[in-house]
Amino acid sequence: MVKSKVFILQKQFEGLPKPGDLKLVEEELPPLKDGEFLVEAVYLSVDPYMRAYAPNLPLGIPFIGSQVGIIKESKNPKFPVGKYVVGMFGWRSHSVANGESNNWASLPTYILPDFGKLSTSLGLGVLGMPGNTAYFGFLEICKPKAGETVVVSGAAGAVGNHVGQIAKIKGCKVIGIAGSDDKGKWLVDDLKFDHFINYKTQDVDKALKELAPEGIDCYFDNVGGEISTTVMNNMNTFGRVSVCGSISGYNDRTSKASVVQFAIVMKQLKVEGFIVSRWNDRWSEGIQQNLAWINEGKLKYKETVTEGFENMFNAFVEMLQGANFGKAVVKA
Amino acid sequence: MVKSKVFILQKQFEGLPKPGDLKLVEEELPPLKDGEFLVEAVYLSVDPYMRAYAPNLPLGIPFIGSQVGIIKESKNPKFPVGKYVVGMFGWRSHSVANGESNNWASLPTYILPDFGKLSTSLGLGVLGMPGNTAYFGFLEICKPKAGETVVVSGAAGAVGNHVGQIAKIKGCKVIGIAGSDDKGKWLVDDLKFDHFINYKTQDVDKALKELAPEGIDCYFDNVGGEISTTVMNNMNTFGRVSVCGSISGYNDRTSKASVVQFAIVMKQLKVEGFIVSRWNDRWSEGIQQNLAWINEGKLKYKETVTEGFENMFNAFVEMLQGANFGKAVVKA
Repeated sequence: MVKSKVFILQKQFEGLPKPGDLKLVEEELPPLKDGEFLVEAVYLSVDPYMRAYAPNLPLGIPFIGSQVGIIKESKNPKFPVGKYVVGMFGWRSHSVANGESNNWASLPTYILPDFGKLSTSLGLGVLGMPGNTAYFGFLEICKPKAGETVVVSGAAGAVGNHVGQIAKIKGCKVIGIAGSDDKGKWLVDDLKFDHFINYKTQDVDKALKELAPEGIDCYFDNVGGEISTTVMNNMNTFGRVSVCGSISGYNDRTSKASVVQFAIVMKQLKVEGFIVSRWNDRWSEGIQQNLAWINEGKLKYKETVTEGFENMFNAFVEMLQGANFGKAVVKA
Repeated sequence: MVKSKVFILQKQFEGLPKPGDLKLVEEELPPLKDGEFLVEAVYLSVDPYMRAYAPNLPLGIPFIGSQVGIIKESKNPKFPVGKYVVGMFGWRSHSVANGESNNWASLPTYILPDFGKLSTSLGLGVLGMPGNTAYFGFLEICKPKAGETVVVSGAAGAVGNHVGQIAKIKGCKVIGIAGSDDKGKWLVDDLKFDHFINYKTQDVDKALKELAPEGIDCYFDNVGGEISTTVMNNMNTFGRVSVCGSISGYNDRTSKASVVQFAIVMKQLKVEGFIVSRWNDRWSEGIQQNLAWINEGKLKYKETVTEGFENMFNAFVEMLQGANFGKAVVKA
């Protein structure tokens, strides 16, 4: 019998998740049936979307999320023993899976592509769901053109920093908005963002007017709320907004912000939200392009790695509070 | 010498416009130059956009707006004496114009098409700018399909009631949101909307869940703010939102509402604002289609007519307060 550690959703989050909301338990896994395989978690992901989806989850189930695991036993020839696999197996140290993608998020389960010497953990970040979120969500919805001005909020997060770098690759001027000067230094010095705004210490509206007097053409929005209204009020006619997330409101869905419709009408903005699974059929295109950019030295990445499966909850809360640089992952 | 009565923007509006903000003066018009013509106002328009644009206008100029006028003198062969003309001549009883569309709104100046026995005032409403706003703004941005559920806010206004009727023509289920039961009765009994919600007396969220348990596919937004967030929270995946106006916030641009980004992401909504001038090259298509629908008995219209040029300000404020059914116009 294989035992698995599992975080169970015990209580619906109110505001920032609290330790008692998830409960760490141990459970015995059933023997494999035909078509199934056993996965041992190697890296687990903590992402903003987990907070967003939580209210839709029933109590008592393992908390949701993806992981890179290693296949320890298999009765499925497509998922052989010893291979790394990426899947939405939840917050579990061990899982029995069947390779189908019939999970809540409709995201694929797949053998990790060959990343060469790079860490398998990147399959949860720059070479996984967040990387594809940046690649498709920015390029397909913002449709950036060389010379345009792009603003990214949540710019130091897994998706945000990646979007800014793609915008630079595409010849755009890039302004990142994030919550600490350390993050800003990383964005500008290491990732070559043109400018950075610290929304905690600066007047975002004033800073945007100074840094982008030409107006903003594309906005990649990870945060929603007041920052987003401010950015949209500074956009050019026919600007495009890709809405990836709304982290500013995940802990309090009743939060209010200055209305966006005024900017949307007057500047004739096109604002579109997306969930990355709509591009499942192009999943490996995104991974391969991001991998190529890394190998060409055009795309950098950073991970905030927390050690220990039992520390997942802390890693999750710290990520929600903005403590991470780049992708937050947990090493099992 | 021809004298014109003119409303001059004297003071920037704060909140609801006040009588002293516009000043009625009399001015002498210069003699016509080649290419010019003299217009005497017959009907003048009061529209929500006037409040929205006001903060961008310099003090001391005639207040903005369109009118249907009759040409009294002409040195322009394209605009002969005796014809009716539609133009953005401002709040003036008499105007000297040249037929060019180099006005603030980039809207065309044109000889009124032949409406048969219908009133020339319709050139300011169902067969003019608001009619084209409904026609293009709804069909081109919402792209409604038969059987879909459409919600219209500001549903009893000039554009809103028209959009709902087009949605019915296209085979959709239509729910109108407006601010009085009298308006609702008109929408449902006369215009054949399927349902009506009075946002002043009903819980819009609850009403939408009851009236559209199948979810909302298209939202035509005239009001912005809290109502719009509520509608968007009840939309289906890949829903489309056409943002035509934001009248709820025109008098107070700092007004706040529950954030929209959560709905935009989770339902992958496409939200687009527009100004009708983007379809200037198809202007007569819109007018002719709306005229055809009227003649076929498929499209009804209502006007709230105020008598007397000097009463324009009152008509404007009453329209902003929602007193009008359908298009608000002033008979000079």
